[in-house]
Amino acid sequence: MNTTQPNTVNGVDVNALTTTVKAIQAEPAIAGFRFRATNRAIEGGLNRSEIGCFYGARQEQRTERAPFVLENDEPPVLLSKDQAPNPVEYVIHGLLGCMTTTTLYKAAAHGIEIESMRSEVEGDLDLQGMLGLDPDVRPGYQEIRARLIVKTKGDRETVRGFHRSSPVFDTLARPVPIKVEVVFED
Amino acid sequence: MNTTQPNTVNGVDVNALTTTVKAIQAEPAIAGFRFRATNRAIEGGLNRSEIGCFYGARQEQRTERAPFVLENDEPPVLLSKDQAPNPVEYVIHGLLGCMTTTTLYKAAAHGIEIESMRSEVEGDLDLQGMLGLDPDVRPGYQEIRARLIVKTKGDRETVRGFHRSSPVFDTLARPVPIKVEVVFED
Repeated sequence: MNTTQPNTVNGVDVNALTTTVKAIQAEPAIAGFRFRATNRAIEGGLNRSEIGCFYGARQEQRTERAPFVLENDEPPVLLSKDQAPNPVEYVIHGLLGCMTTTTLYKAAAHGIEIESMRSEVEGDLDLQGMLGLDPDVRPGYQEIRARLIVKTKGDRETVRGFHRSSPVFDTLARPVPIKVEVVFED
Repeated sequence: MNTTQPNTVNGVDVNALTTTVKAIQAEPAIAGFRFRATNRAIEGGLNRSEIGCFYGARQEQRTERAPFVLENDEPPVLLSKDQAPNPVEYVIHGLLGCMTTTTLYKAAAHGIEIESMRSEVEGDLDLQGMLGLDPDVRPGYQEIRARLIVKTKGDRETVRGFHRSSPVFDTLARPVPIKVEVVFED
């Protein structure tokens, strides 16, 4: 982590972070975000998403750049061609990244410099759930185990719990209401 | 969706799928998978994951190819440089892809050809949760809404519920036990 500017800690502009927090405290509606994706099936386990604009800070957040394009695929043992990570791998990638960013941002807000941070994760999944072969087996992850390896001269007990505020951690640890509409087109 | 081989439906080799299901029924341990990722912080909201081998079908599944590399970043309004999707966007990308693949595979198992499938998703997130500004606001997604748009000549009522067996759908809809170990290195 380089501190390239006087007010930058862990690559985070602390003045901007403080300004954001104060703005949200003054007007909580600023904190409401809507993230979006679209997807299209290609063949077998291969499909492709685009991630473009999102809503946040009370406005549509548009960008000059092209949408991000992400592909899902499945490995041969799961009957596809292994051209991309699979959906459950994207989820644990997001989990590690979110716990990392949350830790770095919160540490920055506390003025704690993180010299380095790396992490690893493993999740257990039993295909019997997805295949409907055993009603006692859930289709999703049964357990996820992660390890965060942090190097800092700051107070370790302060840093230790930061990842628990991670949006992806919370999204996985607690149930999310999901509404799915299935529409058929001619 | 092209049906390129006699036993292929929706790009899925139905004979291989049937063989897999029978093998799991004979020996359920085959169905146990462990997916993994590693990650390293770069700067601010930017970090990078690698996704390499996984465990499944009672063995380490290694591959000749290089690991998949994925980056997380955050947009400027979230104080980073927008070089990649952010972690919560990866989660909804995984959700769409998983519901799509689950629908195509299950349809294939039923001999139902899906001519096309596309989808869209939106998730609500309130930054007050992550920032710890309001204890009543969760850090993660408060609600996720998705729409699946399917074109098929097959029985619509059969197809309608397939996405509910999706591992990512279940992972988000129901709580997952997550164990996180935080280790400090000198």
